[in-house]
Amino acid sequence: MFHIGRLSTVDLEEEITPEESLDYDNSENQLFLEEERRMSHMGFRCLEITRWVICGLIGFLTGLIACMIDIAVEKLAGYKYLAVKQNIEKYTELGGLSISLILWAVLNSAFVMLGSLAVAFLEPIAAGSGIPQIKCFLNGVKIPRVVRLKTLVIKVFGVICSVAGGLAVGKEGPMIHSGAVVAAGVSQGRSTSLKKDFKIFEYFRRDTEKRDFVSAGAAAGVSAAFGAPVGGVLFSLEEGASFWNQLLTWRIFFASMVSTFTLNFFLSIYHGKPGQLSSPGLINFGRFDSDVSSVFIVFRGVLGALFNIINYWLTIFRIRYIHRPCLQVMEAMLVAAVTATVSFAMIYFSNDCQPLGQDNTEEYPLQLFCADGEYNSMATAFFNTPERSVRSLFHNPPGTYNPVTLGVFTLAYFALAVWTYGLTVSAGVFIPSLLIGAAWGRLFGILLSFIASIWFCCVNLTGGIVRMTLSLTVILVEATGNVTYGFPIMLVLMTAKIVGDYFIEGLYDVHIKLQSVPFLHWDAPPTSHWLTAREVMSSPVTCFNRVEKVGRIVDVLSNTSTNHNGFPVVSDTTENDEPGKICGLILRSQLIVLLKHKVFVERASSRLSQRKLQLKDFRDAYPRFPPIQSIHVSQDERECMMDLTEFMNPTPYTVPQETSLPRVFKLFRALGLRHLVVVDNENRVVGLVTRKDLARYHVGKDGLEELHLAQT
Amino acid sequence: MFHIGRLSTVDLEEEITPEESLDYDNSENQLFLEEERRMSHMGFRCLEITRWVICGLIGFLTGLIACMIDIAVEKLAGYKYLAVKQNIEKYTELGGLSISLILWAVLNSAFVMLGSLAVAFLEPIAAGSGIPQIKCFLNGVKIPRVVRLKTLVIKVFGVICSVAGGLAVGKEGPMIHSGAVVAAGVSQGRSTSLKKDFKIFEYFRRDTEKRDFVSAGAAAGVSAAFGAPVGGVLFSLEEGASFWNQLLTWRIFFASMVSTFTLNFFLSIYHGKPGQLSSPGLINFGRFDSDVSSVFIVFRGVLGALFNIINYWLTIFRIRYIHRPCLQVMEAMLVAAVTATVSFAMIYFSNDCQPLGQDNTEEYPLQLFCADGEYNSMATAFFNTPERSVRSLFHNPPGTYNPVTLGVFTLAYFALAVWTYGLTVSAGVFIPSLLIGAAWGRLFGILLSFIASIWFCCVNLTGGIVRMTLSLTVILVEATGNVTYGFPIMLVLMTAKIVGDYFIEGLYDVHIKLQSVPFLHWDAPPTSHWLTAREVMSSPVTCFNRVEKVGRIVDVLSNTSTNHNGFPVVSDTTENDEPGKICGLILRSQLIVLLKHKVFVERASSRLSQRKLQLKDFRDAYPRFPPIQSIHVSQDERECMMDLTEFMNPTPYTVPQETSLPRVFKLFRALGLRHLVVVDNENRVVGLVTRKDLARYHVGKDGLEELHLAQT
Repeated sequence: MFHIGRLSTVDLEEEITPEESLDYDNSENQLFLEEERRMSHMGFRCLEITRWVICGLIGFLTGLIACMIDIAVEKLAGYKYLAVKQNIEKYTELGGLSISLILWAVLNSAFVMLGSLAVAFLEPIAAGSGIPQIKCFLNGVKIPRVVRLKTLVIKVFGVICSVAGGLAVGKEGPMIHSGAVVAAGVSQGRSTSLKKDFKIFEYFRRDTEKRDFVSAGAAAGVSAAFGAPVGGVLFSLEEGASFWNQLLTWRIFFASMVSTFTLNFFLSIYHGKPGQLSSPGLINFGRFDSDVSSVFIVFRGVLGALFNIINYWLTIFRIRYIHRPCLQVMEAMLVAAVTATVSFAMIYFSNDCQPLGQDNTEEYPLQLFCADGEYNSMATAFFNTPERSVRSLFHNPPGTYNPVTLGVFTLAYFALAVWTYGLTVSAGVFIPSLLIGAAWGRLFGILLSFIASIWFCCVNLTGGIVRMTLSLTVILVEATGNVTYGFPIMLVLMTAKIVGDYFIEGLYDVHIKLQSVPFLHWDAPPTSHWLTAREVMSSPVTCFNRVEKVGRIVDVLSNTSTNHNGFPVVSDTTENDEPGKICGLILRSQLIVLLKHKVFVERASSRLSQRKLQLKDFRDAYPRFPPIQSIHVSQDERECMMDLTEFMNPTPYTVPQETSLPRVFKLFRALGLRHLVVVDNENRVVGLVTRKDLARYHVGKDGLEELHLAQT
Repeated sequence: MFHIGRLSTVDLEEEITPEESLDYDNSENQLFLEEERRMSHMGFRCLEITRWVICGLIGFLTGLIACMIDIAVEKLAGYKYLAVKQNIEKYTELGGLSISLILWAVLNSAFVMLGSLAVAFLEPIAAGSGIPQIKCFLNGVKIPRVVRLKTLVIKVFGVICSVAGGLAVGKEGPMIHSGAVVAAGVSQGRSTSLKKDFKIFEYFRRDTEKRDFVSAGAAAGVSAAFGAPVGGVLFSLEEGASFWNQLLTWRIFFASMVSTFTLNFFLSIYHGKPGQLSSPGLINFGRFDSDVSSVFIVFRGVLGALFNIINYWLTIFRIRYIHRPCLQVMEAMLVAAVTATVSFAMIYFSNDCQPLGQDNTEEYPLQLFCADGEYNSMATAFFNTPERSVRSLFHNPPGTYNPVTLGVFTLAYFALAVWTYGLTVSAGVFIPSLLIGAAWGRLFGILLSFIASIWFCCVNLTGGIVRMTLSLTVILVEATGNVTYGFPIMLVLMTAKIVGDYFIEGLYDVHIKLQSVPFLHWDAPPTSHWLTAREVMSSPVTCFNRVEKVGRIVDVLSNTSTNHNGFPVVSDTTENDEPGKICGLILRSQLIVLLKHKVFVERASSRLSQRKLQLKDFRDAYPRFPPIQSIHVSQDERECMMDLTEFMNPTPYTVPQETSLPRVFKLFRALGLRHLVVVDNENRVVGLVTRKDLARYHVGKDGLEELHLAQT
């Protein structure tokens, strides 16, 4: 839930750098072209090899992080459950079980408090699963600080705390965010936070390259989380890459493969079975061998939609009333305590005793009020990390649970999960939705005794909540290791999506919309052919001359009311006093670097006196360009001129005013543009289309609607 | 091998319609915009539903065709082997085995002759696997007659004949082509060949929509061939779709799923086990359950490269000397006879007898000179359809084959496969390469007794020959039904690709190159930044005025020396005598429809007298627009004027002259353009970039090279 974070923080840096668009269009200025021309064919080959190496590194590090999270959660949750179990056993006889409840609640709250404090006060952007943020990043919107090292550290710490704290959350979603941060860091060859520059990978310090690596990182995250490398690739493509490139896809696939392999390798060693490689992902359903011969589809899309609708209202409530960090921490602690209480109450009032099996599959069997040699079956669902619960729901023999237990569990867990998603903690929604689906399915399964039904309810609910079809199918197929389920899984996912879409959008899209992020969908709304670039564009546009006065540039950049990021450069207008013809496009960031290095042409002197600026100067400043306020320009310097010819992009994409919105949209989406210049038939600049101009239009109930987007 | 076909045929129609580019850019002229404006939101939703229905139909029909091919091949090959087996058994005792050889050779040649005659004389484009042609189609090059009904019929007939005729070929490749033809047919709602118009799906009669459906068809083909729906989706994306669209992908996935399900359903019924659904694809490796704990990689990329190099020289030889249809048929028959002879000789001289198992897995065990209760093991490899051979290589227990048998078999089959690919028969190269790989792997497997080694050699060789990484990995994983092999398969495929690329390109690319097709790769060559649009474009360009004389249009269109397909429309040049400003782009096909309907403005009369042309008129003519020669324009009419304003695309994409080649390339590739207008800074037309201008540039040994492309 990044909206809350953004509203509540009083971080000054954030005020200066609001969310921005990423620029996937290379600025092919003279400096760039010169560098490319100097490079030999061998140079390009080396670059390509470097890209592969970086992807390997990304995969490796992501796998390591996943491994670390897994071990830490196992350890901490293990200690916690052991302590509570001993306490319960002690007080079951003595009759003071409320002490156990308090112990449990306090332990949970303590863990969650740690995680929530870190998130709320140190890095609010690390809240939630991070999937909406990564979706936005891949779409071309840069949420501030989303791929920083600090975010990664807090995220990892936070997710360990919230899972160990017993919240109804998963640790899979945050892996995707973690992978993306690793990728953004590794590919730049330096850490701006640690002020350490390794002087490597300098070529990759621009948006285009960074986006490619971040896709690879996200894929590696999915791959590590679910042991699903192909699913990871498809996730990245489904969410992000509008321009599919074969080589890029292979690199993404490579990163995914390395990531799952690394996780598998280290977890095997940790579990004392090196070489067996049986843990390809964080989640592991075990093997399914039963045949599917019948599929029945419950209207689970409805339940998924219900989840999203309730969560939507809850989020709005939170935005209005719970926007102070300390309130957020308190809410998180409250949820943790309530979770413990509900769990305890469920266990306490359930009298569903099951005989303790020979093989002792339960790690923490609770006897409680059951007879000797029996255990409380409700405890297996609550007294466990959510993943283990899913696994026991799948694999425990029929008859382990009675229908009432399952029904009550499903309802309680559903309520807890809805409440939990959106708290100021790092956590994913994937496992909870699988868990609710599995419990629900098990309920049906008791009636019909099909393992398949569990699985399909599971799939159905998850599909209803997150609404990804292709990649989710592949992820689930890969996670079960059984291709046979492919067709039914897909059918179920589709149904869930269609039913769910009728009510409300997917959970991630709901949260993206709440944030008013200018998120571009795949196509322009179908009924928008009558809109033209003239109606869509922002106008008038601030343009610069090819040789412009420094004073004017500083004034324009300092104007906080406009806060533009790209400026068309026009041929000098002084001669005939009509608007100039377009001859290039220059970015705010480039101008700032030029101002910082004082690349001025003094009126009298020749151009030779100018210090020759290189691409390196721009790369060193990337991606945290200083704000204009920090650059001092003296009164004398304001009178100097700046020659932009060498630095501007001399061939920006342009469209005529009559171009229809779908056409503009396609150009924007396919090329990943940030600015598109609209010209008249004399090639004079008449307007500028940016991402926000396009994202405004949506299909509503009565046709096309114009949305109000955040004015950042 | 479509080059041979093209060179040899003396089909007049082909002379008139040389290979063309597809236009994925919608011509958004006034007619189109008016239609879109009239459509309600509901109308667009209906269209979307129709698209899904069509994709379902495509999948269903493709599955049916696959089913038909499979049953026909099984039946025919069954009769053949039964006849030969009885004959051999008869003559083994009598001592006249040469008669059996002749019978075998004659049967093979007869089958192959039928197939080859149909292909060579009726539809040369149906030769080969069709994968290169579909790759080209998805890339945007339309090889003439590649998606016609006649091609489909000949292809299906041809592939049945060639597989039944015992050639070293597979029936999987042609399925991809078949699926594409089905898609192109179904989506248009009519058959031009059968002169039957169902008056449905008229909206989809344009290149953009057709391409989308053809991707779905190709995916459905892959899915039916290998039982790999996700692999099918990835194949379509890897080969074709440059612009990834989520909704499109889901539709493609749906078509794939329906296709494999249909095949599965009907084959199960045919095999008398309805409801069991155990035949998801034409190829079926059976289940692998063994664990992979070690991988060794032989330098199989080298062998794959060898295959491609030999085949390259052979193809060149064929283009030079074997270009008459009757010669082609004779060569095919010769290969069939030689295949029979080689097989027979191998069986005859092999004295590798194996005891007949209890379970009798061999369908046609040949005793020959073996003792009673034993069978000739070489016969199991040759006396079978290639797929069954692959399966027996995988699943027969260790010790079934001796190393010498396998070694000789591998070499012989390799030679036969190289010779066979490129014959004028419909056939695929996938199964032969799997078979060679499997035999080779089994050879290693005897030494190391790993089923894994068979598999990896198999994968490796196939990877070495066809060089698709991602989709092939997924196809093979799905075909085996075991996800565990994913990582090793990918590693092996990568190695094969890297090693192979060092020597020569993939087989399909070799054949595409031989054809001089203007095939666009994913990116511009890396060292091409110094080339600008000015150097790349064709110039001067034939332009039309907004209101143009009919005589001039007819003359320009009739000029066979230029044969352009797109013409920039400029504002009238008469006023100031300088080149006109761009105001639109009109296609040859549109002009032809206009001429056919005589949409002329007579000098005196008002515009109201014009018959109002509708989009429907353009759609009815799509895709076989009549040649200009067939349109009669009288001398009086030549003096009339034509107003192009309503019909031209008023907002074509343009670039300035200084745009670098990679930038032009990206725009072209991402938007699927056919024509890109180059303008100067006054918006005057100075040149036109087409696909051929871009495809000329390739990276050679010494950097950038300019290729000579076919002047069609």
